[in-house]
Amino acid sequence: MNKEFEFLNIINKTLDNSDFIGDDCAYLKQLNITISTDALIEDVHFSRRYMTDEEIGKKALLANISDILASGAKPKYALITLSGKLETDFIKNFYTGINDVAKKYRIKIIGGDLTYAEKISIAITVIGDSRKRKISSRKNAKKGYIIATAGEFGSSAMGLKCLQENIKNEYFIKLHKSPKLYPKISETIAKKTTNPYAMMDSSDGLIDCLYQISKQSNVKINIEYNKIPKKTTERDFVLYGGEDYCLVVALSEKDFKKIKGIKKIGYCSEGQGIFIDNKIAKYKGYEHFE
Amino acid sequence: MNKEFEFLNIINKTLDNSDFIGDDCAYLKQLNITISTDALIEDVHFSRRYMTDEEIGKKALLANISDILASGAKPKYALITLSGKLETDFIKNFYTGINDVAKKYRIKIIGGDLTYAEKISIAITVIGDSRKRKISSRKNAKKGYIIATAGEFGSSAMGLKCLQENIKNEYFIKLHKSPKLYPKISETIAKKTTNPYAMMDSSDGLIDCLYQISKQSNVKINIEYNKIPKKTTERDFVLYGGEDYCLVVALSEKDFKKIKGIKKIGYCSEGQGIFIDNKIAKYKGYEHFE
Repeated sequence: MNKEFEFLNIINKTLDNSDFIGDDCAYLKQLNITISTDALIEDVHFSRRYMTDEEIGKKALLANISDILASGAKPKYALITLSGKLETDFIKNFYTGINDVAKKYRIKIIGGDLTYAEKISIAITVIGDSRKRKISSRKNAKKGYIIATAGEFGSSAMGLKCLQENIKNEYFIKLHKSPKLYPKISETIAKKTTNPYAMMDSSDGLIDCLYQISKQSNVKINIEYNKIPKKTTERDFVLYGGEDYCLVVALSEKDFKKIKGIKKIGYCSEGQGIFIDNKIAKYKGYEHFE
Repeated sequence: MNKEFEFLNIINKTLDNSDFIGDDCAYLKQLNITISTDALIEDVHFSRRYMTDEEIGKKALLANISDILASGAKPKYALITLSGKLETDFIKNFYTGINDVAKKYRIKIIGGDLTYAEKISIAITVIGDSRKRKISSRKNAKKGYIIATAGEFGSSAMGLKCLQENIKNEYFIKLHKSPKLYPKISETIAKKTTNPYAMMDSSDGLIDCLYQISKQSNVKINIEYNKIPKKTTERDFVLYGGEDYCLVVALSEKDFKKIKGIKKIGYCSEGQGIFIDNKIAKYKGYEHFE
């Protein structure tokens, strides 16, 4: 169990009414929204050595939109909180990036906060509209369900390596800086499935997604390595690399057949743990707090 | 014009669809919610020298609930993002403070994020239910409107001074650490007024509230110093001290007569600027970015 899980357990024990905590998004049925919040810290989640301020703004909003897409809702509004030794140029470039993504995904920026801090930190809250959509929960997977994905795994980690080691590979670098999202596929899944499904984005890597779904749904997950969509040969990046923002979904076979654009990489069965080509996979979550 | 205004102007120019920015809360009519987000940074907004971790949690959530109360909505849900060199004890104590306030105000904690950072930073988003309530806008004040308040001004700044200079005055220290909020008065205003009103909380001080309302409503505001509710004799704290979280409201005379618990301190007239006892008041906003 890593530190983050330990902390989440403490939080759940301390709070009297935390029945919503577990998914990246909270689903407020009464209000017909899903809502998600994420923080990005300079030199922890991003470095100004490798990213321009505009690229930082873009990626920060994309990462948060991705959480809403993984819930099955339609991203609609965002609040942006920016802390740092803020300067005019940074603000302008950062918000130019924010604006590009907001326009592309038709999201309104409805507020936020600006404060002084030593290092840049960005906290974004995105609100999605859940009307006419079936919303995901990590608890929804069942034995017999298909594990399917959209997007390619490991490319973002490869892109970061290229930046760090000064390797010129625009393909991977672009996917690291400006990840591809899958709004159409998310919408189709949320509208066409008839059985409950469990969907996540691979912000913390493929195995992390499978582990969360497996744990919360109490199923064993079996995948085949050669079926995973990928362009890199680095196995560790494919399985554990974060920030690809691929969709990873567990859904019934009947529903799987209705959805175009996703690829089957495995299935759920009775038991526990993640198995790759019948060998148990080590769980390595992102250790933020070692 | 201070830096924060300059930055907000840049953001407004950079974003194509930012018609919501201006109030602390965004009002999403379509969804019947108001929503607000705020960041608190260690050694900028609070110091662990003067506050326990539990008190930090309490005050962080109170400050954000206050923004929703100032909008006129009913606070319902919160998302908590916590960054820092997080340790088990800190998490437990911080969330104990969060839980106390959440229980008192019947707020559900529905999610958040935990990340590593050098210094503690807290970003909280609170969602309010706006159904059956008239929502405030800073643009709503008109000439002839009454300026009225709930709560006492300057006590929080006085409490901070007591902590910093080791003066034993539990009254002011308590108000600094655990500010009083006015949910009943906010509810009455939101339900009983028939004309549009402009309400703010005095998180950045009384004059800041009056300045924002005056500027966005294009009215002159006149107040009498001796009518301002206060327990401290430090004039600068009363006018410019932050974190009292008093309600400051501009409302029609007809509506003012219906609301119990608020005190008239002045009125709006044609023109610009803030006048205290007929002398123009200097505007000193919180200079976060000097």
